Amino acid sequence: MDSSGSNRSISDVPHPYFPKHIKLDLRESFHSTITVLAVLGSTVSLLVFVVLLLAKRSRTKIRGLDKFALCWFTVCSVIHIVLEGYFAYNHKTLASKHGILADLWREYSHSDSRYLTSDPFTVIMESITAIFDGALSIASIYAIFTNSPARHIFQLICSVMQLYGDVLYMLTNKFENYLYTNPDPYYFWVYFFAMNIPWIIIPIVLICQSCKQLYIGMNFNHTNKLKDS
Amino acid sequence: MDSSGSNRSISDVPHPYFPKHIKLDLRESFHSTITVLAVLGSTVSLLVFVVLLLAKRSRTKIRGLDKFALCWFTVCSVIHIVLEGYFAYNHKTLASKHGILADLWREYSHSDSRYLTSDPFTVIMESITAIFDGALSIASIYAIFTNSPARHIFQLICSVMQLYGDVLYMLTNKFENYLYTNPDPYYFWVYFFAMNIPWIIIPIVLICQSCKQLYIGMNFNHTNKLKDS
Repeated sequence: MDSSGSNRSISDVPHPYFPKHIKLDLRESFHSTITVLAVLGSTVSLLVFVVLLLAKRSRTKIRGLDKFALCWFTVCSVIHIVLEGYFAYNHKTLASKHGILADLWREYSHSDSRYLTSDPFTVIMESITAIFDGALSIASIYAIFTNSPARHIFQLICSVMQLYGDVLYMLTNKFENYLYTNPDPYYFWVYFFAMNIPWIIIPIVLICQSCKQLYIGMNFNHTNKLKDS
Repeated sequence: MDSSGSNRSISDVPHPYFPKHIKLDLRESFHSTITVLAVLGSTVSLLVFVVLLLAKRSRTKIRGLDKFALCWFTVCSVIHIVLEGYFAYNHKTLASKHGILADLWREYSHSDSRYLTSDPFTVIMESITAIFDGALSIASIYAIFTNSPARHIFQLICSVMQLYGDVLYMLTNKFENYLYTNPDPYYFWVYFFAMNIPWIIIPIVLICQSCKQLYIGMNFNHTNKLKDS
């Protein structure tokens, strides 16, 4: 904020994003980075805690990798629907918007300015992620709680989409030599790398789990059909 | 070809692609559109014919939607591995390359010039499609022939990836008001629309088939487990 106490537009002064030549109708963030990250972290932690509590009281025994998947899809639901949904809906005016979610995206955009310029791939990919990966994350949570036969179908489709979207996202930036990323190692490693690599590693683990379980199910079904015939 | 009989570079003359301001080191195609489409069509038809012949002689009974899926994944294998693989490998020099595959891409690029400009999203998406969708198409063909329990797992992952990739591809162009497409209805409807919409419709049908079969398999397995316990 400036001395008058109001947020000022800094579209007329050089912005801190990369590449330097992009033009942004930028508003200074109201909340500090610490506040933004603390609100995000505590919201997600609270939701995970509630879900774990419900899992403990559930009639379905939820253990090991299933418990982890439950926490994971809870985190994914919040991030896909709230954060990425907010971006997809407000991408055109995000740089100059008020509010903690806009502040959060302005902070993350240091690692990828495509979020402030309505980059076509970023907008379309994030819209799909918000709607479909968000819905599939919630479906996976429900299916784990109810021990539904559909559980690994939801988990497999969701994880394949997350993996594909994230690989495309990271590699398109790499393809342009991280043109959109502030070269400061903090922004590259902490924001761009560490905040995206879980959506590569964890979907691979969950795809393997789902493929194994689905294969066992189909093989069992197949063997019984052969026995019956 | 010019009067001397050699292909001439036309980088110094206005090109026929959209948007007009892109700069291309373009070489005139040697083969006519008819030749290019005839070679592609007959290669694909021949492969489908061979696969159908093998299906007829196979010990596994392959009928209805399974027979269609077999033909579909054969077409996909050729297109993903040969055509899209060629593009992914040669994208940097595609505009000026010799050969029927380069001619084919130069023809298709009337409907999307991103193929001639190494557009980051297009290159990364096509590379993933060539490698992973290509491999999964072949795995699906093999699994249909051998009636493998893994068949619907391969089919589901492949179809989700094809659908996601194609939706991203079509919508990123739409997002920019078909900036990259020649506004002639022929290029839009015949090339951009008709050559891409099958990878939206057919994967949706095959995803539904796979989900149904996997659900039946998991439900059967689940019911038997409950009986045993």
